[in-house]
Amino acid sequence: TPPSLREAKLLAARLLLGRVRKSFNVPPSAEFVARPVGICSMLRLPVRASAEGLDAAFVGVPLDTGRGAIRAESAMVRRHNASTGAAPFDSLLVADVGDVNVNLYNLPASCRLIREAFQKIVASGCVPLTLGGDHTITYPILQAVAEKHGPVGLVHVDAHTDTGDRALGEKIYHGTPFRRCVDEGLLDCSRVVQIGIRGSSYAPDPYKYCREQGFRVVLAEDCWFKSLVPLMAEVRQQMGAKPVYISFDIDGLDPAYAPGTGTPEIAGLTPSQVRGAHYLFSLCLSVGNTALLGANLLFEMLCVLPGVKTM
Amino acid sequence: TPPSLREAKLLAARLLLGRVRKSFNVPPSAEFVARPVGICSMLRLPVRASAEGLDAAFVGVPLDTGRGAIRAESAMVRRHNASTGAAPFDSLLVADVGDVNVNLYNLPASCRLIREAFQKIVASGCVPLTLGGDHTITYPILQAVAEKHGPVGLVHVDAHTDTGDRALGEKIYHGTPFRRCVDEGLLDCSRVVQIGIRGSSYAPDPYKYCREQGFRVVLAEDCWFKSLVPLMAEVRQQMGAKPVYISFDIDGLDPAYAPGTGTPEIAGLTPSQVRGAHYLFSLCLSVGNTALLGANLLFEMLCVLPGVKTM
Amino acid sequence: TPPSLREAKLLAARLLLGRVRKSFNVPPSAEFVARPVGICSMLRLPVRASAEGLDAAFVGVPLDTGRGAIRAESAMVRRHNASTGAAPFDSLLVADVGDVNVNLYNLPASCRLIREAFQKIVASGCVPLTLGGDHTITYPILQAVAEKHGPVGLVHVDAHTDTGDRALGEKIYHGTPFRRCVDEGLLDCSRVVQIGIRGSSYAPDPYKYCREQGFRVVLAEDCWFKSLVPLMAEVRQQMGAKPVYISFDIDGLDPAYAPGTGTPEIAGLTPSQVRGAHYLFSLCLSVGNTALLGANLLFEMLCVLPGVKTM
Amino acid sequence: TPPSLREAKLLAARLLLGRVRKSFNVPPSAEFVARPVGICSMLRLPVRASAEGLDAAFVGVPLDTGRGAIRAESAMVRRHNASTGAAPFDSLLVADVGDVNVNLYNLPASCRLIREAFQKIVASGCVPLTLGGDHTITYPILQAVAEKHGPVGLVHVDAHTDTGDRALGEKIYHGTPFRRCVDEGLLDCSRVVQIGIRGSSYAPDPYKYCREQGFRVVLAEDCWFKSLVPLMAEVRQQMGAKPVYISFDIDGLDPAYAPGTGTPEIAGLTPSQVRGAHYLFSLCLSVGNTALLGANLLFEMLCVLPGVKTM
Amino acid sequence: TPPSLREAKLLAARLLLGRVRKSFNVPPSAEFVARPVGICSMLRLPVRASAEGLDAAFVGVPLDTGRGAIRAESAMVRRHNASTGAAPFDSLLVADVGDVNVNLYNLPASCRLIREAFQKIVASGCVPLTLGGDHTITYPILQAVAEKHGPVGLVHVDAHTDTGDRALGEKIYHGTPFRRCVDEGLLDCSRVVQIGIRGSSYAPDPYKYCREQGFRVVLAEDCWFKSLVPLMAEVRQQMGAKPVYISFDIDGLDPAYAPGTGTPEIAGLTPSQVRGAHYLFSLCLSVGNTALLGANLLFEMLCVLPGVKTM
Amino acid sequence: TPPSLREAKLLAARLLLGRVRKSFNVPPSAEFVARPVGICSMLRLPVRASAEGLDAAFVGVPLDTGRGAIRAESAMVRRHNASTGAAPFDSLLVADVGDVNVNLYNLPASCRLIREAFQKIVASGCVPLTLGGDHTITYPILQAVAEKHGPVGLVHVDAHTDTGDRALGEKIYHGTPFRRCVDEGLLDCSRVVQIGIRGSSYAPDPYKYCREQGFRVVLAEDCWFKSLVPLMAEVRQQMGAKPVYISFDIDGLDPAYAPGTGTPEIAGLTPSQVRGAHYLFSLCLSVGNTALLGANLLFEMLCVLPGVKTM
Repeated sequence: TPPSLREAKLLAARLLLGRVRKSFNVPPSAEFVARPVGICSMLRLPVRASAEGLDAAFVGVPLDTGRGAIRAESAMVRRHNASTGAAPFDSLLVADVGDVNVNLYNLPASCRLIREAFQKIVASGCVPLTLGGDHTITYPILQAVAEKHGPVGLVHVDAHTDTGDRALGEKIYHGTPFRRCVDEGLLDCSRVVQIGIRGSSYAPDPYKYCREQGFRVVLAEDCWFKSLVPLMAEVRQQMGAKPVYISFDIDGLDPAYAPGTGTPEIAGLTPSQVRGAHYLFSLCLSVGNTALLGANLLFEMLCVLPGVKTM
Repeated sequence: TPPSLREAKLLAARLLLGRVRKSFNVPPSAEFVARPVGICSMLRLPVRASAEGLDAAFVGVPLDTGRGAIRAESAMVRRHNASTGAAPFDSLLVADVGDVNVNLYNLPASCRLIREAFQKIVASGCVPLTLGGDHTITYPILQAVAEKHGPVGLVHVDAHTDTGDRALGEKIYHGTPFRRCVDEGLLDCSRVVQIGIRGSSYAPDPYKYCREQGFRVVLAEDCWFKSLVPLMAEVRQQMGAKPVYISFDIDGLDPAYAPGTGTPEIAGLTPSQVRGAHYLFSLCLSVGNTALLGANLLFEMLCVLPGVKTM
Repeated sequence: TPPSLREAKLLAARLLLGRVRKSFNVPPSAEFVARPVGICSMLRLPVRASAEGLDAAFVGVPLDTGRGAIRAESAMVRRHNASTGAAPFDSLLVADVGDVNVNLYNLPASCRLIREAFQKIVASGCVPLTLGGDHTITYPILQAVAEKHGPVGLVHVDAHTDTGDRALGEKIYHGTPFRRCVDEGLLDCSRVVQIGIRGSSYAPDPYKYCREQGFRVVLAEDCWFKSLVPLMAEVRQQMGAKPVYISFDIDGLDPAYAPGTGTPEIAGLTPSQVRGAHYLFSLCLSVGNTALLGANLLFEMLCVLPGVKTM
Repeated sequence: TPPSLREAKLLAARLLLGRVRKSFNVPPSAEFVARPVGICSMLRLPVRASAEGLDAAFVGVPLDTGRGAIRAESAMVRRHNASTGAAPFDSLLVADVGDVNVNLYNLPASCRLIREAFQKIVASGCVPLTLGGDHTITYPILQAVAEKHGPVGLVHVDAHTDTGDRALGEKIYHGTPFRRCVDEGLLDCSRVVQIGIRGSSYAPDPYKYCREQGFRVVLAEDCWFKSLVPLMAEVRQQMGAKPVYISFDIDGLDPAYAPGTGTPEIAGLTPSQVRGAHYLFSLCLSVGNTALLGANLLFEMLCVLPGVKTM
Repeated sequence: TPPSLREAKLLAARLLLGRVRKSFNVPPSAEFVARPVGICSMLRLPVRASAEGLDAAFVGVPLDTGRGAIRAESAMVRRHNASTGAAPFDSLLVADVGDVNVNLYNLPASCRLIREAFQKIVASGCVPLTLGGDHTITYPILQAVAEKHGPVGLVHVDAHTDTGDRALGEKIYHGTPFRRCVDEGLLDCSRVVQIGIRGSSYAPDPYKYCREQGFRVVLAEDCWFKSLVPLMAEVRQQMGAKPVYISFDIDGLDPAYAPGTGTPEIAGLTPSQVRGAHYLFSLCLSVGNTALLGANLLFEMLCVLPGVKTM
Repeated sequence: TPPSLREAKLLAARLLLGRVRKSFNVPPSAEFVARPVGICSMLRLPVRASAEGLDAAFVGVPLDTGRGAIRAESAMVRRHNASTGAAPFDSLLVADVGDVNVNLYNLPASCRLIREAFQKIVASGCVPLTLGGDHTITYPILQAVAEKHGPVGLVHVDAHTDTGDRALGEKIYHGTPFRRCVDEGLLDCSRVVQIGIRGSSYAPDPYKYCREQGFRVVLAEDCWFKSLVPLMAEVRQQMGAKPVYISFDIDGLDPAYAPGTGTPEIAGLTPSQVRGAHYLFSLCLSVGNTALLGANLLFEMLCVLPGVKTM
């Protein structure tokens, strides 16, 4: 239960005066709580019914089956980022707000439910960190995001560009979200980068559409055998200070690292590439993902949100 | 947050006067909420920090790894018992109170933590329905139960009698809980039935101890090829109207039905035997178990708690 | 390539005169062909582009993922039914006609595609033996069947009655096909039997609708510990000589026998019950199913088609 | 190291005079040794290089991959048979004599190696309890057995009669061993019983050959829903006091209980049927099998060897 | 049914005159056909009874169990090679010709069956792309290939050189095929390269034989941490314009990428190494392999066949 | 049974005079023994009851479940190290001495049992190569080692430093062994290197303790994309000629290579890094590990023991 108006005012006043220390949610430490203990929320954080008052929120979108595994594996993630010193849980108020309801038998109806749920989260000023997929969900999420922020930049790690026009006659499915976003002006196309793209294709030149929109397409084969840190420095530059949405399809990684994907492509990125790369960012809005890698990558995204202190 | 004292008094008065209708927790129906949606609590019921005010509570004890799976599979269980008409969620206030903390590196310390947690639950008047194991946990739970209720009857479904004296020099482990309970007078030995017992043994006469205490030992081989309904009628008679603790070790079932157990024994009971049997009960205090079977059996136990109406 | 009109006439004349022996498709024998050899068609029968000219056809409907496994496991099924002496491949011309196309992103569109495909198969006089699911597919298949045969009888083995009205606002999904069939008059309700029904329910009386339509609902708990042969004799009587559709949802069986189902319910039927039962039939139109059990049950259905000789 | 001749003579004298107590091998008890401890021998018994001096010996034949699993699971089997009181390890000197060498690329060569190895074991007076398969191995084992004992009776639990004549032109493979045994006069055909037989078949009358030899073929469908104890009493009678070979193909059981078989057939026997049945025997020579069921069934066979005392 | 001689002549004439457009087989696009639809042929191409008239053919050799998985996973492979622009299905007539029959109980007999089947394929002028193993099959395939082309060059990716002399007394098994090929003069030894070789060995100098024949042996440890493109340029040079056979044992890759192999060796090649490498080729005859990697590598081999156009 | 004193003296004399050739244990070659044959000892070496007389011994410590798998997979390892020419089995007398007994219900009691067992092994002059874990076992092993050798150097490959102080109030568990070793002066802290360290942490500066002790901590991220050979040259230098203990926690590797670990961390080392690295050593005492990687790494450790000849 949120504080009464009077209590809230009092609290606000004290915060302004520096008299109180904001109280944060922190993942339990295995020093004091046995790791298997607890309801299976993300990082075992408290479950909240809404994003109201949160700085960042983990939120599930259950069109596929990955969220349960990500939440379960997230018990392995601890409070601090040992590489960067980031201490997100000492900087931001974070919780797990559960799952958005979806309609398993009607994809457009699901998209509407997702858009409405994210409109509320975004409106509250909370940054959503999304668990789930399939990648269809990016379309309604970006509708909600762009409604507040206008067209956003995009860093998109994936095996596929997801810019098809339609399949089996349908315009909405996991192969088309970014074409739909372009159609509706949700992306700042000069600030779109797609990384890890690979695989055989239906068309002879499958990247033509992306290049025509001004996207930068970085093929997986151009990433092999090397660190992505230099690339990410360029990307950082390109993104500038304006809002960026980060979308991570786990099949951007090689299937050896992320076997639980429905559309695997061989010869993908490695965790050391994507881990070494994305903490260069400091501005992001959301991210979608799967399992142990998912849990860790979501944690790393959290670590680079604006306002996260290092210790 | 619980109501203030004044609110509580008011509420109690209204309840007494029949002026208010108690508000219950109900598992979400797939008619309105997609089945995969939601934080993974038991039957997707609300998560509560304590058992205070609840009629019954699901509680996890994480000495082994089964709880996550039971909670996940419990999303398949629905609101009504179609066989008996029992409507537990329209009769009792039920929630998931999460997990008891344990000490993974010190079994006696875990037992102390479990006993203390169950003392609180039992003291509040709430009936605990326990998810977990291994079977060691029955010992501290029965300590808590007997502290309030005195020596209790026991219906124990298992492949093993769990009445060993010690192993590797230790008196507390999953093979000894009921011997420890007898040692401490926690059981009403004339009302103890062990069902499904089988397997090779360390001693030539492995059931001698049980029989000396007055337990009824029903071997699995005496259950083969037939319904357990007649047996359960006898057991019901034997238990009378006094408190009974129900302990269900999933290895009582044949490993074909419950492969995820650490101590499988071939030629066990079948789900139709245990399902057909245990809704004859109407008085129980707790029950321990694993996975889809676990979820369903826990639901059925809930269905026979005192006060559950049928519709 | 089918024979020319002239050749066909000649052939027909010869058949009438008993001068030629019809040529059949027969599963390869492991005596001559190594079992793993071959493109993975049902029973390794020839793959045909259409049902034209066939007496019976295996046909896949890929809304879920079971067909590949059924076709793979069907390599274990041999030419003769050792229990009954039935020799379907010496009596009927049978082939695998591949899969119906579906729309993975639009369930009503899938239903339209399935209905159209089965209209063609049924029109050709071929009996379809369907691999697949989920159970949504029964609705468009029965639309096609009833268009030719009028309302049909139904023998339905399942854990669930599948007669819900809607979920998440949708009228078409795997929980509603038989309600839709009743709505459209596709079933002869006095000849509908549902066997193996069980599990918890959303409504206090989940079988009310079925009984109101005149269906016979045989609960799993009424089948435990005994042969279903007497029941099936009654069912046979009830069905009479009129067309019957057989629908087999693999979750009618206990999850120990058929773990690969999305909606498992404990304490179900056993293979010896359903195997011992359904070769009492001699008139059926179709059947839907999964894996090794699926392959065998489809074979047994084939064995009781009209015209199958025994040897 | 075996005792010197002098020591042996002394020992023999003492044994005759009843002055010494024979020293046995006994599976370690979990009371004193943690269950996972130890090199993975059968029941964690000592490994011996030869069968010389043993009363019974576990021996592996690695044509397939089951032995490792049986030996691993056998750590769950304890010293006494709680059902019958049999105490084999207090009656017989038992050890694990490891595996027979085989030729993975030449089946007839493997048969020769197996036959020679079993000739040595049988010659030493030791009863072999064989782990392994595939079922081809029964042929060379019975060659060795019959060389010493003459034609033997056979109790054969299996889904298939294994009496084919040839496949792919070969006379020796897992579908033909008992035809080869008949060809060579290794079986006393009036004392052959095959139990659990089922499944589709290549020939219209697949049991004709067996019946012509005088075998009793007990179909699985004649065993459903009931205890096999009465059948086994008849079999016991039929076997009389002459040598019997017991051959247990794990696919005699339903695949739900024994999924790890290469030739599964649905609707098979249950562990309670075969467990309840075969301790009626008191004369056997060998037995082949797989995994937890395998470990337990081998233990039960051991329990009924001549000379086993009950306690 | 192939065209009649007259039709064929007519067709050939038209082809020569450029009057007809050759009709190709093309994998179905998920834009129009749902991905799971279809009989499980390689890339869902048409199944043909013979290689006659084909430019290239996928053919299975079922000595092990990988083909089903490769064909299933090949549904993920699409029509164009996005990296190189190759459009094999617009250049060559390709189909799946099913599996060669083998003799599971007699390896030399299998080799004879394989050789005869490949003699026919090679004679027809069709390039076989082989799915399967184990690696024994390379020996009879190379017998067939060399019969037509004379001694061929060899690019062999593998963890092992497969040049043993014999095992368990046998000269033919998966460890010896290339020694047998040398014995029979099937290889142009100055154009043999073996890549990815590693692991412990029976002999102190396990590569001695290979070097004595003039093979180039490239150890896996010399490939670690770098692209194989420079190596492949050298190999290309070495191979010249003469016929080359490509043999790919999936265990050349690290077990993390290809766990389904029977003889795993740690620290192997990565998919980015082999993918980045082998499209440098433009002349190949065949290739053996497993699963998703197998499907993709076979597609890439197809992409570099002579005559494949890029778009 | 060891030789008598007299025999031993005679043997020693002969050895000195070069008159006898020491007899070694050698893993069976698949040339003569089928690979699946044999009791599942490490590399199928003889099982010995004690380390007495051995130069090196494989020994299991069963606190977790990996040993069975390592011993099973070790059948893939052959006699010679093809990379370095090392021939350990022609240089040292090696055997498998089975498992140390542990107390599964009492971790400090297990530590005592382990320490006592290793004291005996170390006292006999035999080098133990340990299979098992969890990592708690390093503490009692180093107690035994340091009792004989004094404080030793340490090369520690792991994702975690394992230098926590306590968890759940306990000082002994798998997160604390090296802190306990420092507490008791078992390590020569100036010769301690920890490699592969990574992951989120409970404390803001998780490596502070290690650095304060003088340990060198090499983060995984500093190892990405490159060979560890230069690092290992430095480490070799640092270790000097004094005793070194090598401790290898399999989670040092990326979970794609070693999924069977309880505490996975993404973005770890690769087998080519650790294989390429550690045969630079030539002095070690022990090593703990898991599965196929475990088997190979243990073999490589054996290859660099003092006294191993190359061929």
